[in-house]
Amino acid sequence: MSPEIQLQALNLNLPPPPPKGGVYQPLVIVGSLAYLSGHGPYLPDGGMIRGRVGEDLDLAEGKEAARQTALAMLATLKKELGSLERIKRVVKLLGMVNCTPEFTEHPKVINGCSELFAQIWGEEAGVGARSAVGMGSLPGNIAVEIEGIFELA
Amino acid sequence: MSPEIQLQALNLNLPPPPPKGGVYQPLVIVGSLAYLSGHGPYLPDGGMIRGRVGEDLDLAEGKEAARQTALAMLATLKKELGSLERIKRVVKLLGMVNCTPEFTEHPKVINGCSELFAQIWGEEAGVGARSAVGMGSLPGNIAVEIEGIFELA
Amino acid sequence: MSPEIQLQALNLNLPPPPPKGGVYQPLVIVGSLAYLSGHGPYLPDGGMIRGRVGEDLDLAEGKEAARQTALAMLATLKKELGSLERIKRVVKLLGMVNCTPEFTEHPKVINGCSELFAQIWGEEAGVGARSAVGMGSLPGNIAVEIEGIFELA
Repeated sequence: MSPEIQLQALNLNLPPPPPKGGVYQPLVIVGSLAYLSGHGPYLPDGGMIRGRVGEDLDLAEGKEAARQTALAMLATLKKELGSLERIKRVVKLLGMVNCTPEFTEHPKVINGCSELFAQIWGEEAGVGARSAVGMGSLPGNIAVEIEGIFELA
Repeated sequence: MSPEIQLQALNLNLPPPPPKGGVYQPLVIVGSLAYLSGHGPYLPDGGMIRGRVGEDLDLAEGKEAARQTALAMLATLKKELGSLERIKRVVKLLGMVNCTPEFTEHPKVINGCSELFAQIWGEEAGVGARSAVGMGSLPGNIAVEIEGIFELA
Repeated sequence: MSPEIQLQALNLNLPPPPPKGGVYQPLVIVGSLAYLSGHGPYLPDGGMIRGRVGEDLDLAEGKEAARQTALAMLATLKKELGSLERIKRVVKLLGMVNCTPEFTEHPKVINGCSELFAQIWGEEAGVGARSAVGMGSLPGNIAVEIEGIFELA
């Protein structure tokens, strides 16, 4: 299964790689591991999906924000690595949801990212370990932030 | 010190390995590191310890939830690795407490997990780096969620 | 660029390595990676910078707390490794801000740590991947907690 062919077959519209919003590197490689900085739901027009799930956004909109975050992550990975083929597997995701204290469906929100990665790299290589949790707040009031660790081929 | 003999000596009642609650792998191995997904306080009867520490649960109950989470982590590690003997050391835990904004005793809560791991693998190998922090919310309103990195022998 | 010479040139006043506040190791080394436990803004007199950013502390005070946290991290790294020269690069930081639900400037707060590390190890080696997010609460109501992964030389 080729992630680049899958990317084309799914006809996905990647946003540009998000601009840096602080003093950090988008991706750092150490040995065979690549550490990807926290990404938000960056849109092709340069905007972000903002708001609190359970208040401003419902579950479906939160999941859509996680999917958009996955597209932004793919954009950074492609830019930094040259090709998604260089990634052997998704190792670990930390999915952080900007939501009300009463919200309970964090895993369903972050599935918006994980399901897309499963389509790109396959059900085994595209699905890593994960935590999906609720934050007190996120930068710029974005709906979702996800960071990841990837194994390189 | 054998973790499997310790497990028997302590007469611990492990819950079954928790069912997956989303699109992720319980454990991913890369080289000598094993990444364990976020676990909650899963009970032998299939229930979870739920509620917010500082409101629904007190400190002792929160610590008990962290201990139960440790048991669920051990159940997954045993299932995925075959034996706890395969683990050389605890590298890192992220202990996430579902608590009120005023709560301040997160380390004491997560000690419920760390103290059990110290009994299983010993004071050196069983105790890793750690952060213990307060979340805005957790999936299903569980009291505690803990993820971990382990070194394999 | 020598981090130890930079440390002297900047005339930084490191606090003592913070005492442990729970059952964990300050630093765990696995292969060429060093995992540093979550640190708070520990002061030379043994106090901590406490309070919620956006309520008790403003952005500048939050950033100062992140800088103080960086100093505490350096103190632990120096004690555990003997010298900052042993660190090849900053791999990843998780910057956790104790702030109001309405706060949106988390990256600017955590830059207080990242900018100091860039001065110590340089713009390339001192700047890693990063997430900067808002927590529901932090231990002892500290303003900031930061954990990190470092590559050893």
